[in-house]
Amino acid sequence: MAVYTDITDDELAAFLQGYDLGAPLAFKGIAEGVENSNFLLETEKGRYILTVYERRVKAEDLPYFLNLLTWLADKGYPSARPVPDRNGRTLSTLRGKPAAIVEFMSGLSARKPTVAHCREAGEGLAWLHLAGEGYPGRRANDLGQAAWAPLFAKHRKAAEDLKPGLSATIDQDLAQLSLMWPRNLPSGTVHADYFPDNVFFRTDGKFAATIDFYFACDDAYAYDLAVTLNAWCFEADGSFNITAAKALLNGYERRRPLSPAEKEALPILARGAAMRFFLTRLADWGATPAGALVRPKDPLEYERKLAVHREGLVLF
Amino acid sequence: MAVYTDITDDELAAFLQGYDLGAPLAFKGIAEGVENSNFLLETEKGRYILTVYERRVKAEDLPYFLNLLTWLADKGYPSARPVPDRNGRTLSTLRGKPAAIVEFMSGLSARKPTVAHCREAGEGLAWLHLAGEGYPGRRANDLGQAAWAPLFAKHRKAAEDLKPGLSATIDQDLAQLSLMWPRNLPSGTVHADYFPDNVFFRTDGKFAATIDFYFACDDAYAYDLAVTLNAWCFEADGSFNITAAKALLNGYERRRPLSPAEKEALPILARGAAMRFFLTRLADWGATPAGALVRPKDPLEYERKLAVHREGLVLF
Repeated sequence: MAVYTDITDDELAAFLQGYDLGAPLAFKGIAEGVENSNFLLETEKGRYILTVYERRVKAEDLPYFLNLLTWLADKGYPSARPVPDRNGRTLSTLRGKPAAIVEFMSGLSARKPTVAHCREAGEGLAWLHLAGEGYPGRRANDLGQAAWAPLFAKHRKAAEDLKPGLSATIDQDLAQLSLMWPRNLPSGTVHADYFPDNVFFRTDGKFAATIDFYFACDDAYAYDLAVTLNAWCFEADGSFNITAAKALLNGYERRRPLSPAEKEALPILARGAAMRFFLTRLADWGATPAGALVRPKDPLEYERKLAVHREGLVLF
Repeated sequence: MAVYTDITDDELAAFLQGYDLGAPLAFKGIAEGVENSNFLLETEKGRYILTVYERRVKAEDLPYFLNLLTWLADKGYPSARPVPDRNGRTLSTLRGKPAAIVEFMSGLSARKPTVAHCREAGEGLAWLHLAGEGYPGRRANDLGQAAWAPLFAKHRKAAEDLKPGLSATIDQDLAQLSLMWPRNLPSGTVHADYFPDNVFFRTDGKFAATIDFYFACDDAYAYDLAVTLNAWCFEADGSFNITAAKALLNGYERRRPLSPAEKEALPILARGAAMRFFLTRLADWGATPAGALVRPKDPLEYERKLAVHREGLVLF
């Protein structure tokens, strides 16, 4: 087992004494999530995911995430409900690290999403935006537009190492994004990482559930949609699949019609969303521990998406 | 997901059409097994492990392993029964690689085995030896004593890099093992990798199941026991826990009493078993792909065990 945090059977037994879940029947590290250690936990009461929070997720943000998951589950949104311990707390500690147990969600992620998946995913995202309305937790998007230039300043050399001349192009992009970035769009609680890995489908291809809310924050709903377009609608060869994108937008608008201002803003939001993932991948590149379960993702994938958006998308 | 082999939802659906298992409900890469890609697969019929066989496991050996698993399950031994496809075959192909589905086994491995676990594990191993009697499959132990000197010849430099002077010590060990290696001990089908990761316990601490038979082969039963002593009875500080060892032997003899020749041979078998794992860890050190789910294991752990056995164990 080479999960970031390894849990012994004694530690697990002691941890579970704090919960009303019965004895453990099976426990396996699973290869899901870049940021945390996740374990499939089967007990006499059912199946759960035990998450031990590692780097990047700030401990002080965890109540925001766990309360959001509880809020969404209460609203009937298909996300993993946190399991409270015997004292009613959803946030606990294991091996000195923050940890939580959430319900196991059935469903399969679409590793090669089809146009039909994109439509369903779009609808699932709009549903999430509506279900999150009224959630009282607040969390600024610390990877939002204002963070990009300072983040890039720290990784300029890595960009040049990847592709000579890239840092000047990114500087130009950042300047343009700063000038053109839309303000005052409808905003609220967004997922901010609604990638195919984080969305489950039923066997019949219908949207089933959303997982991994550890980037959730306050931002424009249309920005969340732009992140989603980037994550779902590019082909492996770097081309943008406009059919998939239109299906995703169409699915979204089944639940939450976009305003004219949101539609107009989508191309620049998508360019910014590509910048955000390019920059964090650039920062992660080479910073992932050697024994990590998950390889760092290629920053150049998002640099290519950025290049597509530089030309300007026509979505409507 | 960064399992060695990544399976798309389309590939999974197509693969499952060959089986009478219904539609998939959940599918997750799990961090189990160094050699293969393992997935937790839930379908309408139940829970399974889907294994895609990667490097080291030879495709021509797979019928031996899968037939052994079927044999053991037929004998009532708690190991994962392979699931035949619609044509009655347990070995299939996925992404051009050999693949198989086996039943999911409940139970927890003991990451810090207690003396009580050792007793149970010993009994589970003897049970395995008895259950395997009569299995018609044959497979020579390609990591047996005859293989060690040629294997070391290829990795002599790596040994020196780990610890200057080590290669001369290993040469001496290999010469002594060759001279002293016992022949004609009771032999049959052995697990050959009966480590704590591969043995499950019930909640009450009783032996539950054995998994991961992909090193199984023909060898002396007492050699399998020696591998097990090394894997279960050393403390983290490198000291040998004689209490745990006696419990393990005692548990083993509950089911299968050892002959005087087997007892006499155990110290040299344990030294050889330490050599075998030292050598393969030495060979793996640095040869594991960067994105692998599992870190290569430290060869020096087994070099320290070898040093303990060089002094000679007194077990009885």
